[in-house]
Amino acid sequence: MNDPRRRNIKLVIAYRGADYHGWQRQREHLPTIQQAVETAAARVLGERVCVNGASRTDAGVHAAGQVATMLTGNLSIPLENLRRAMDGKLPDDIAIRSAEEVSPDFHASRSASGKTYLYRIHAAPAKPVMLADQVCICRAPLRPDTMRLAARRLIGTHDFAGFASAADERESTVRTLSRCDVAETDGEIRLKVTGDGFLYHMVRNIAGTLIEIGRGRWRPGRIDEILSSGDRRLAGHTAAAEGLTLLCVHYDGNR
Amino acid sequence: MNDPRRRNIKLVIAYRGADYHGWQRQREHLPTIQQAVETAAARVLGERVCVNGASRTDAGVHAAGQVATMLTGNLSIPLENLRRAMDGKLPDDIAIRSAEEVSPDFHASRSASGKTYLYRIHAAPAKPVMLADQVCICRAPLRPDTMRLAARRLIGTHDFAGFASAADERESTVRTLSRCDVAETDGEIRLKVTGDGFLYHMVRNIAGTLIEIGRGRWRPGRIDEILSSGDRRLAGHTAAAEGLTLLCVHYDGNR
Repeated sequence: MNDPRRRNIKLVIAYRGADYHGWQRQREHLPTIQQAVETAAARVLGERVCVNGASRTDAGVHAAGQVATMLTGNLSIPLENLRRAMDGKLPDDIAIRSAEEVSPDFHASRSASGKTYLYRIHAAPAKPVMLADQVCICRAPLRPDTMRLAARRLIGTHDFAGFASAADERESTVRTLSRCDVAETDGEIRLKVTGDGFLYHMVRNIAGTLIEIGRGRWRPGRIDEILSSGDRRLAGHTAAAEGLTLLCVHYDGNR
Repeated sequence: MNDPRRRNIKLVIAYRGADYHGWQRQREHLPTIQQAVETAAARVLGERVCVNGASRTDAGVHAAGQVATMLTGNLSIPLENLRRAMDGKLPDDIAIRSAEEVSPDFHASRSASGKTYLYRIHAAPAKPVMLADQVCICRAPLRPDTMRLAARRLIGTHDFAGFASAADERESTVRTLSRCDVAETDGEIRLKVTGDGFLYHMVRNIAGTLIEIGRGRWRPGRIDEILSSGDRRLAGHTAAAEGLTLLCVHYDGNR
């Protein structure tokens, strides 16, 4: 890993996911964020590079602070020039917010100690046409206070199997949430969740469950039943991808 | 026109233009706003209807208050039900804000006494990824005060031939602007223009010219030269469609 002929670069990347098939490069020639960033990096650095993201965001999901690392043999280009050049070569819906050199053993995904996601729910009667691909639209009235009470029950260390979509095959389904807030402003309900890790579709399944609770179809205690049973069928539907934004990735100690 | 078996309905429509080939129905099967609204109306009213808009917004242009009229032989459906049903059948990026019955001689376009457009220019260094298709991105620093001085010179009755793209073939190119403001907040410059009518691409050509003046490439007096010469080549480029929003359509007196 400790190759003096290579630099390890940490990128912070923002994007609107609406026009992409998610973060991860696809075999088919579908547009993805990773593909776009790797193409921009290759053009600026003059070599092929592999850009590894901290989170494989799904199609339609956005990011304000995705983190990715890449190794480059280009030792000469100043980091701010690299950032600006990559940013300039990317389309308007993908931005490179920062580029810094990190230690060779830093890895965007494996070194992460946690992530914070935002889920936006538009709950006012009038359609927010300009936000059509940035929020989940809920036509039924929602009670944010009830949603907040339910959300608090998720904080702590739990087995979140009941909030994971079936495709997840990782061994442990135990995760720790340090934050699970519900706030409301101007007809928009914003769920913010910080955890040490997230199972497949976990934030969207939490959002879908909180929407049912906010509509009054279930009580906040439903959260405890889903957690204790681990039964995905007790939780709500997977809320729409467009409501989700990866806000930031957390790293403890050395990077 | 005065057919008691038909109602004339005035609709106020909001949309995000990013995914449409403009307002007007196309011969090819391209998605347009008019097509989408007519399809929704036909499904709700149970008859084919023609929806006539006040402004034929271009591909990518948005609207907060487009106005359109349609004649219907359906005399029974209450207007709020019609509005809600059409709104519900339209995709998330098109909304019906209101529906009201108007006199038979009211026509969305011909009865209009004016329109107000907004042009949004993002002028901060960081790319606004979530607004990628809602603003015009200008990488050079802009001086809003200079742009404001230049914009004021456009207020009044002038021959705007120099600000019309060649495709315009209407006879008179004289129009009256009652408002042409430049405001800045949070790195975004907002141009608001109210006029009794607009030539083809006129707001976007004004925006493109004000951007050049804001960058310091031309002085505010350039506006007078463009107005007096009527020479399109003296004005700036046609600024990007995605920066433009039709805010509202004005009607005087009876509707």
